[in-house]
Amino acid sequence: MQAEIITIGDELLLGMTVDTNSSFIATMLTEAGFTIYQITSISDSREHILKTIDEAFTRSDFVIVTGGLGPTSDDITKETIADYFNSSLVSDAATLEKISSMLKSRGLEMNENNRKQALVPDKCKVLSNERGTAPGMLFEKEGHSLVSMPGVPYEMKYIMETHIIPYIKHHFRKETIVYRTVMTYGTFEARLAEILEQFEEELSADVRLAYLPTAGIIKLRLTAGGEKREEALEKINRQIKKLQGIIPQYIYGYDGITLEETVGDLLESKSLTLGIAESCTGGRISGMITSVPGSSKYFKGAVIAYDNVVKIRELGVESAVLEKEGAVSKSIAAAMAEGVMQRLGTDFGVGTTGIAGPGGGTPEKPVGTVWIAVASAAGTVTGKFGFGMNRESNIRRASLAALNMLREQIISS
Amino acid sequence: MQAEIITIGDELLLGMTVDTNSSFIATMLTEAGFTIYQITSISDSREHILKTIDEAFTRSDFVIVTGGLGPTSDDITKETIADYFNSSLVSDAATLEKISSMLKSRGLEMNENNRKQALVPDKCKVLSNERGTAPGMLFEKEGHSLVSMPGVPYEMKYIMETHIIPYIKHHFRKETIVYRTVMTYGTFEARLAEILEQFEEELSADVRLAYLPTAGIIKLRLTAGGEKREEALEKINRQIKKLQGIIPQYIYGYDGITLEETVGDLLESKSLTLGIAESCTGGRISGMITSVPGSSKYFKGAVIAYDNVVKIRELGVESAVLEKEGAVSKSIAAAMAEGVMQRLGTDFGVGTTGIAGPGGGTPEKPVGTVWIAVASAAGTVTGKFGFGMNRESNIRRASLAALNMLREQIISS
Repeated sequence: MQAEIITIGDELLLGMTVDTNSSFIATMLTEAGFTIYQITSISDSREHILKTIDEAFTRSDFVIVTGGLGPTSDDITKETIADYFNSSLVSDAATLEKISSMLKSRGLEMNENNRKQALVPDKCKVLSNERGTAPGMLFEKEGHSLVSMPGVPYEMKYIMETHIIPYIKHHFRKETIVYRTVMTYGTFEARLAEILEQFEEELSADVRLAYLPTAGIIKLRLTAGGEKREEALEKINRQIKKLQGIIPQYIYGYDGITLEETVGDLLESKSLTLGIAESCTGGRISGMITSVPGSSKYFKGAVIAYDNVVKIRELGVESAVLEKEGAVSKSIAAAMAEGVMQRLGTDFGVGTTGIAGPGGGTPEKPVGTVWIAVASAAGTVTGKFGFGMNRESNIRRASLAALNMLREQIISS
Repeated sequence: MQAEIITIGDELLLGMTVDTNSSFIATMLTEAGFTIYQITSISDSREHILKTIDEAFTRSDFVIVTGGLGPTSDDITKETIADYFNSSLVSDAATLEKISSMLKSRGLEMNENNRKQALVPDKCKVLSNERGTAPGMLFEKEGHSLVSMPGVPYEMKYIMETHIIPYIKHHFRKETIVYRTVMTYGTFEARLAEILEQFEEELSADVRLAYLPTAGIIKLRLTAGGEKREEALEKINRQIKKLQGIIPQYIYGYDGITLEETVGDLLESKSLTLGIAESCTGGRISGMITSVPGSSKYFKGAVIAYDNVVKIRELGVESAVLEKEGAVSKSIAAAMAEGVMQRLGTDFGVGTTGIAGPGGGTPEKPVGTVWIAVASAAGTVTGKFGFGMNRESNIRRASLAALNMLREQIISS
């Protein structure tokens, strides 16, 4: 089964919006057994919308369209798709009622724009949208299906999960493609490819390996197809066992898990607690840790000690050491980790200090220099890192390095 | 001038990677005067790559391709594009030398994969890549140009900035499309469209308005075209002046500036300092503030008080108040903001406490309930917010709300 995704909006072509909808939809369709042939982003142009839908329909069984359903005049998707299916716009009572009560709960009156949003093509199935005013629309034509959804990610996700996935399961025959990912941290793609050369050669033809590098983390994706899900999964799991023997030092988890989730799982399973003292990472590590639901079970808190005075007063760092060795030093990272552990009474303490850039570098300590420490009852370990010139990248890489050091220390605790 | 972007990689079609490259490239090409006709994401498939390039070449003057240049066997873009241009692969001495010295600096030997990366089509101009091993490639054919770059964003950006933009300026005639964005916070799209109905009606035909909503922030983009940049800009600036009169309460800045940058600019220009006490936002606000280069000038630090004990010990919150009113309350938000301001000796203190979810809600304080306080010498202001059920969205919306409250207090200080 083949599917395509079309995202509509001038903001995409002008580069003002990153298209995150496509990857979400593609993941769900892949899991449902579809192969995505193409993702096409086009502007709010009637001719281009009609042409793109027409081409997609000649190739694919299922076409998903997002965007251009807003209440403003630059949004022309609904009218255009209605014309494509020779359909007229009629007011949908249920949608009108939903919009009306949504507005009432916010203390607002219905306006012309709201009323326009309740218009739907008469030949579509209306897909209710509990998170916004524009409903989704489902069309069927000559054995093919097309869905149009709002481009707002939060609304699109609701319609995908509530309406589209059940529709797919009911409407399309299910072949199965299964993939799993092995999450690695600590090396780079070319090196990993070298280590895994023999592994790749020995892979049977029906299992495929892909390297998916993002900043600091490389996902290894293993894909297998087949009639039965269990068979395909078994093929993949055999290969994962082999990988566990070849690169155990780099594997930190599976199937998209983040380092912060892995650290959280470890802390929770061992009933341990965490405190963090951040300087150059500025709150990023705490933000990552607390992005995980339930993190309050193991995360007590953090001190973001951007100013040296805060390092001294709130973390007990000695000003003499600060003066002698500088804020970006092994001693200060260790004192920060130990200080926060002691102050917050936690089992583990993490400290980061470095030069995120773009300013602040010196010949001895260039931009990108970062010291990280992890303290626990077993003692304090430290690491020095030399990242690059880019502030955002330095903050991210330092945060990942700290989480990975913490992970290793929890495991060996 | 028309351009197209083609992004190649199975990971895009499987939904495992969000395509952030396209928006970066589209922004740069738009600024250089191109209209982007289409962005097409396709898999690592030879036939599909050839077909997509061929179609783009019939429509557009300039085609930019990213992805599929990695060292591993699933990357076939280089071979395929070489064939498209009837070109053979030859080893490029400069690239080989660069890869060799890059490996040496990391203490590594050159392997077969690295050597393969120094192969380039003989009919292309090689675009050096200082941030990775795969160089970019520029082809010209019958007045059209095609560029192929690695898909790693950090490397792609280097090649765009170092090679492509100078090439465009030299090679293509420059028409100008100018856009500016007005950044708004505090309302939603349908409401804004209603307020701006008359403004839109009065817009002259050559200025276009678009609403670009993201979580919590709506960008208003004004676009105008013309031969001269100054003329087009003048048309837009006239409309921005009008907007300043109609929605002053929602406008916080211009041209993509973030709330954290706006807050930073205000603090720096008034020589004021900031401390933050975060509970439900877990470090997100500090992370946003410190993502801005130079934030150490005004940001002293933060206490992430996830646990109530940390609120009491590190922020001086009274346990009797905690017990009586609960952690998610007006009094606690205020005590946190005042506590951090006092402890860190800053001009402003921000406090957040709430229920991010998915767990922890009660009938009186459902998930999404957040109290925010901003303290200063002028006193403490507080606000209560009711966001939704989604943890990530709640953390983000609470952080934006806190930054905006802080912005208003700094302005009126």
